[in-house]
Amino acid sequence: MNEKLNALLAQLQPQFAERLVTSEAMREHHGSGESHLPPAWPDAVIMVRSTQEVSDVLAACNEHEVPVIPFGAGSSIEGQIHAPHGGISLDMSAMDAILSVEEADMDCTVQCGVTRQALNEHLRATGLFFPVDLGAHATLGGMAATRASGTTTVRYGSMRDLVLGLTVVMPDGEIIRTGGRARKSSAGYDLTRLMVGSEGTLGVITELTLRLFGIPEASQTAMCSFDSIQEATETVVMALQCGLALNRIELADTLQMQAINRYSRADLPESPTLWVEMTGAAPTVENDMDTFEGLAESARKFERATSAEDASRIWRIRHDALYASRALRPGIKGISTDVCVPISALPSCIGAIQEVIATTSIQAPLVGHVGDGNFHLVLLYDPADEDEIREARHINGSLIKMAIEMGGTCTGEHGVGLGKKAYLPAEHGPALGVMRRIKRALDPQNIMNPGKIFDL
Amino acid sequence: MNEKLNALLAQLQPQFAERLVTSEAMREHHGSGESHLPPAWPDAVIMVRSTQEVSDVLAACNEHEVPVIPFGAGSSIEGQIHAPHGGISLDMSAMDAILSVEEADMDCTVQCGVTRQALNEHLRATGLFFPVDLGAHATLGGMAATRASGTTTVRYGSMRDLVLGLTVVMPDGEIIRTGGRARKSSAGYDLTRLMVGSEGTLGVITELTLRLFGIPEASQTAMCSFDSIQEATETVVMALQCGLALNRIELADTLQMQAINRYSRADLPESPTLWVEMTGAAPTVENDMDTFEGLAESARKFERATSAEDASRIWRIRHDALYASRALRPGIKGISTDVCVPISALPSCIGAIQEVIATTSIQAPLVGHVGDGNFHLVLLYDPADEDEIREARHINGSLIKMAIEMGGTCTGEHGVGLGKKAYLPAEHGPALGVMRRIKRALDPQNIMNPGKIFDL
Repeated sequence: MNEKLNALLAQLQPQFAERLVTSEAMREHHGSGESHLPPAWPDAVIMVRSTQEVSDVLAACNEHEVPVIPFGAGSSIEGQIHAPHGGISLDMSAMDAILSVEEADMDCTVQCGVTRQALNEHLRATGLFFPVDLGAHATLGGMAATRASGTTTVRYGSMRDLVLGLTVVMPDGEIIRTGGRARKSSAGYDLTRLMVGSEGTLGVITELTLRLFGIPEASQTAMCSFDSIQEATETVVMALQCGLALNRIELADTLQMQAINRYSRADLPESPTLWVEMTGAAPTVENDMDTFEGLAESARKFERATSAEDASRIWRIRHDALYASRALRPGIKGISTDVCVPISALPSCIGAIQEVIATTSIQAPLVGHVGDGNFHLVLLYDPADEDEIREARHINGSLIKMAIEMGGTCTGEHGVGLGKKAYLPAEHGPALGVMRRIKRALDPQNIMNPGKIFDL
Repeated sequence: MNEKLNALLAQLQPQFAERLVTSEAMREHHGSGESHLPPAWPDAVIMVRSTQEVSDVLAACNEHEVPVIPFGAGSSIEGQIHAPHGGISLDMSAMDAILSVEEADMDCTVQCGVTRQALNEHLRATGLFFPVDLGAHATLGGMAATRASGTTTVRYGSMRDLVLGLTVVMPDGEIIRTGGRARKSSAGYDLTRLMVGSEGTLGVITELTLRLFGIPEASQTAMCSFDSIQEATETVVMALQCGLALNRIELADTLQMQAINRYSRADLPESPTLWVEMTGAAPTVENDMDTFEGLAESARKFERATSAEDASRIWRIRHDALYASRALRPGIKGISTDVCVPISALPSCIGAIQEVIATTSIQAPLVGHVGDGNFHLVLLYDPADEDEIREARHINGSLIKMAIEMGGTCTGEHGVGLGKKAYLPAEHGPALGVMRRIKRALDPQNIMNPGKIFDL
């Protein structure tokens, strides 16, 4: 590797000059991200500014057989930006231009390094917004690469649904354009959807054309507590069947509510809780929240926000859930599970894993995007304690096994990276072989983010 | 070919017996479909009953290098079921079992030969439905293979969006399962979306897991006439930006309205016309139709349905548009164009193609799924008249060229088949090479529907 790497760096140095960095600090920053996994540093970082520069780097890396790892904001949590085989971390964060906004067509084209926050800030005056809403401060390129979603997926879909087209640099440096600006097309293979979720293993996404939506006229928020996860889930199922104007519907379990009370010095009911937001025209929002309250007849408490400020207060509680979880064991990091199951399987899945958790010393509060059947347990464990590590791994593995048996997936929105590779054979069976064949066909030298999603 | 074919048929004959058919009538039926293209018969037809039987046939065809063309209802119109290189037409219509309906999860799993009509009939008692609504009597497997859509795509999306998972038989006979029953997943490459729209060139879809939706409580229909396509389109853009509860929004041009008046002996305004349907809760539908009427201030006539029967009458007019078009020149077949453009480009695209049409002797009424930017011109020409053939081709080619230049696609919902292959280089550029590499990797013998979408 070293000889090839040196030849590569010598070739790229004149072009990138001070934007090709090999300092320890930069390599460390680009080899850790926000993951719970041990860091794996790249050999060098290149700060690119254009699709053409990405093409230049990839062509050179392909020639010298040096790995390339695309890097956006570093917010991925399954090791997607790690460099287990060394190579070049391709830092896309300077590619942050919003290239066009077409208000009548409700679409925009952005460079991959634009964050969703920056895009929505830019859109503010138009009355439009991009709805994918996740916890992290992430780039849109990274969000596409991991097929990210979040709290509003129940209404608007995930990155899978909202990317109309991409500019992608293929491993040999060829620049392709997938999809387009039409809302739908039946013209050939859906390369856009193939690249979305491929975690940088097939090419580098440099530009995205995204669907936008009008900001709804009105919204209403409520929070309600149930005696059981089962009752909460049944209410959600009915709301989905009725096609209510749900924008978000989020779940927390009893332990999470206890953590929130402790963190926020609040006095909320310590039992399974739903947060609900309806958005749309004012009469719709009013009607649908009334309907929802009727459906939630098993709720022991139903609190409707009385003002925009009150709604913010209620959502702040949900937002603080992660901090509240961490505060259960200060100084201890947590890893977040990410299974997604058919919604009817949620109560049995959660019940069964809570039984497993009860046999361990681990605390694991739960929040979930219940409308999608996706939930996160924050497994709080001491990385210096071998027993706790083993217990946390056991819980994670048991949960994933159950989820897959129930027709679900090991990862609803975080992606595979390094952290979930071991579970793909059980989830995909022989389909994993088809994925490998595609990888080999499009990246024969295996330079693109090697070792991620699966091994070859 | 003949020797290989004979060896194949000798091998499969004992297994399939009278379900392996080589009669002229069957070959003709399976080699024509509803396409305007000249027929191309397969050498034999095999009526399969199970995924395992499909696997057996594919493994044998792969061994003997004989083409396989999946056949559902034969309703494809771009030659997808034609057999230009001969081979086996794999008739899936007997695979018509509805395998499961999960009401709480709002999904179902069906065999590929189930039609959307049969599925919705089966679902009637559940209060759920499958929303993709196209003109043809098509199978769900065929609809997935061509990435079909239709009038309700503006609300629910197309087959791209509504397939959760697939069972696919790969060209060597391997059976894979893509996706699952989770609403979302970030676990690896999106093989489901790769297979959807691949028109049988990568494998055979044998089972589909589909999203279902609750039947909305209420609906309202209106029909309104404008002085120009521009005004009609502007109204649609505003309605989309407002996020109104549109279920369908359809457009017809002046010639189409003249044809409808003649066919139905009606007295409708002969100018660009929109059909609109809102669905949802009763207050939503009422409110959103009021809003729409306000947005449609440039309409010269706005007629709101006064009852369910009246709504049916209004939609019957839209439904009869194709028959009305054909009645403009009785006995003459029409070919249907299928471009899809960013919605803001619709008026200029339609205006420009109408100028081209005016220089020919062709009549070409227009209907469109205006909310998606997808429209169809029915090009009425006499296939015995060389001049008219040339003119019709010129119109179709000019329209596609314009649509692609405007950021659109040559086909919004009909697929490529044989009929649109020539346009893919202009639409996809080097991305077409990536599609070919995927095809070669997954079907190295090129047995799956060879010659469709692109040549190798």
